[in-house]
Amino acid sequence: MLQPPTILFLSDTSNRSWPSALAEVFPGYQIATQLESADPANTIAALVWKHPYGALRHFNRLRLIVNLGAGVDHIVGDPDLPAGVPIVRLVDPGLTDRMSEYVLMHCLSLHRKLPEARIAQSECRWNFMAPTPPDTTCVGILGFGKLARACADLLSRIGFRVVGWKRSPATFGSFDVFDGREGLPLFLSKADIVVSLLPSTGLTRNLLDSSFFHAMRAGAALINVGRGDLLVEEDLLASLDSGHIRHAVLDVFRTEPLPIGHRFWSHPNITVTPHNSSATDPSTALQQVVENIRRALSNDDLLNRVDAEAGY
Amino acid sequence: MLQPPTILFLSDTSNRSWPSALAEVFPGYQIATQLESADPANTIAALVWKHPYGALRHFNRLRLIVNLGAGVDHIVGDPDLPAGVPIVRLVDPGLTDRMSEYVLMHCLSLHRKLPEARIAQSECRWNFMAPTPPDTTCVGILGFGKLARACADLLSRIGFRVVGWKRSPATFGSFDVFDGREGLPLFLSKADIVVSLLPSTGLTRNLLDSSFFHAMRAGAALINVGRGDLLVEEDLLASLDSGHIRHAVLDVFRTEPLPIGHRFWSHPNITVTPHNSSATDPSTALQQVVENIRRALSNDDLLNRVDAEAGY
Repeated sequence: MLQPPTILFLSDTSNRSWPSALAEVFPGYQIATQLESADPANTIAALVWKHPYGALRHFNRLRLIVNLGAGVDHIVGDPDLPAGVPIVRLVDPGLTDRMSEYVLMHCLSLHRKLPEARIAQSECRWNFMAPTPPDTTCVGILGFGKLARACADLLSRIGFRVVGWKRSPATFGSFDVFDGREGLPLFLSKADIVVSLLPSTGLTRNLLDSSFFHAMRAGAALINVGRGDLLVEEDLLASLDSGHIRHAVLDVFRTEPLPIGHRFWSHPNITVTPHNSSATDPSTALQQVVENIRRALSNDDLLNRVDAEAGY
Repeated sequence: MLQPPTILFLSDTSNRSWPSALAEVFPGYQIATQLESADPANTIAALVWKHPYGALRHFNRLRLIVNLGAGVDHIVGDPDLPAGVPIVRLVDPGLTDRMSEYVLMHCLSLHRKLPEARIAQSECRWNFMAPTPPDTTCVGILGFGKLARACADLLSRIGFRVVGWKRSPATFGSFDVFDGREGLPLFLSKADIVVSLLPSTGLTRNLLDSSFFHAMRAGAALINVGRGDLLVEEDLLASLDSGHIRHAVLDVFRTEPLPIGHRFWSHPNITVTPHNSSATDPSTALQQVVENIRRALSNDDLLNRVDAEAGY
């Protein structure tokens, strides 16, 4: 008996409506939501999020692996992916917009000193601080890719000054973008708010450490929406406690959910959000996945392909 | 001996650099910073902020009274102003921009449920809430004048839906603007966040009372950047405690500074800011005052004239 071609959907947290939506778009295909129900000989696409390493090892007929999110550190860390299968990730406009809004919201809040106002409120203290224009604050964005450029555009439309930092040299319209390890000190000397949008790679893990904080401006603030393992947690706490760093807004953590009892929860100068700075919009993301499966089946160029070696 | 023409500057809180700046622009004029040093017979302009009522009674040669701020409730409440002297107020772009930024910042924060995230943080609770686009939130602005339109423009550029409410009918481009007492319930039925930018007048004082809150959507939020006496404080506390109103951001109060021990300071669902949603930018404001004094001296039409009867 001829087995139907199969699309494997392997995710505990992604939207549960996807399998039925995929079945509607790809009639005649089996949509497998368990590893055991997908036959490697017939499976042409695997849609995965935080899959168990090694799970895809025998799926050597895959035309496509779809990473069901923007961050690819988990998937490219799997040493047992089937060789030569292209990986794509989600880049959806909803995700970009939500991230830009989150970054804008916290940049406004830090610029207007809302964390300090909250502490004053808890002490019944009327602490008048004259409002200043956004162009008195420079926001520095680490990891100047697509997402960062969208944030930079929105921030500069509101009036913030924006600079960027990137691994390798590139030009980005009107923004000053520094690059490489040697460009980091100059970048940090300019930024009143440092926003980390970096992926987690061998080059970025533990980048936000005491020497990084030391190079930040006195009284500057940090927003980490990249990955939790960019940050050396004890070093951040020391910099906050010394007063050199004013406030940190953290959306990502080494362990998620952030463990009960972790010092970040109760630190007066840390804002914790539960990794919800952004999330994939199910409707626009589905369209993109469908389009990429179609392209894979007809050997067209794929959208948002991942460079597994570079790690993004 | 001929007395020089005099400009009276009477303010405890406005920028102290103004008198010397005025002296530079108007050589030959006396700049008086005390009531006693200004001769009513020679004083042609009075620049005041929260002056003692009656202080200007004998200044019947004034060509102009300048209110050194945007809100005019204090000045038009003085029963002893010299008759027939035009009053102007400050409308400066810096003030408008700072206000728009404050309103945007708190609308983003309420839309993205940061107050709830803060409570979860205080309880070490990982409370994931999926981010939603701004167009899922409707912001309703009470008092749809110049300031409100600037806020509405900025909010809608970010993606929020915006409706307005005004005392009397008017059209405002693409925004739905309701009017009059009879238009209030429909306006309130649409708004997830109600922003009060109203002046304090006989018609608006105590408008934000229990019946107003009752007409708001369940789970809606309030931002008051108008005047403290718009708000019936006990009614707000009751609405917050019942859970009908989710959160209130308050920048203005009946008594300022907000007294130590006031329940607003410690309420978990109230954000207190110290009347710094906006402030006049000294440099742009000075230009405007100089221009208005020039116009008054040459009998030209004044900028930003106040309708003392309407109260704004």
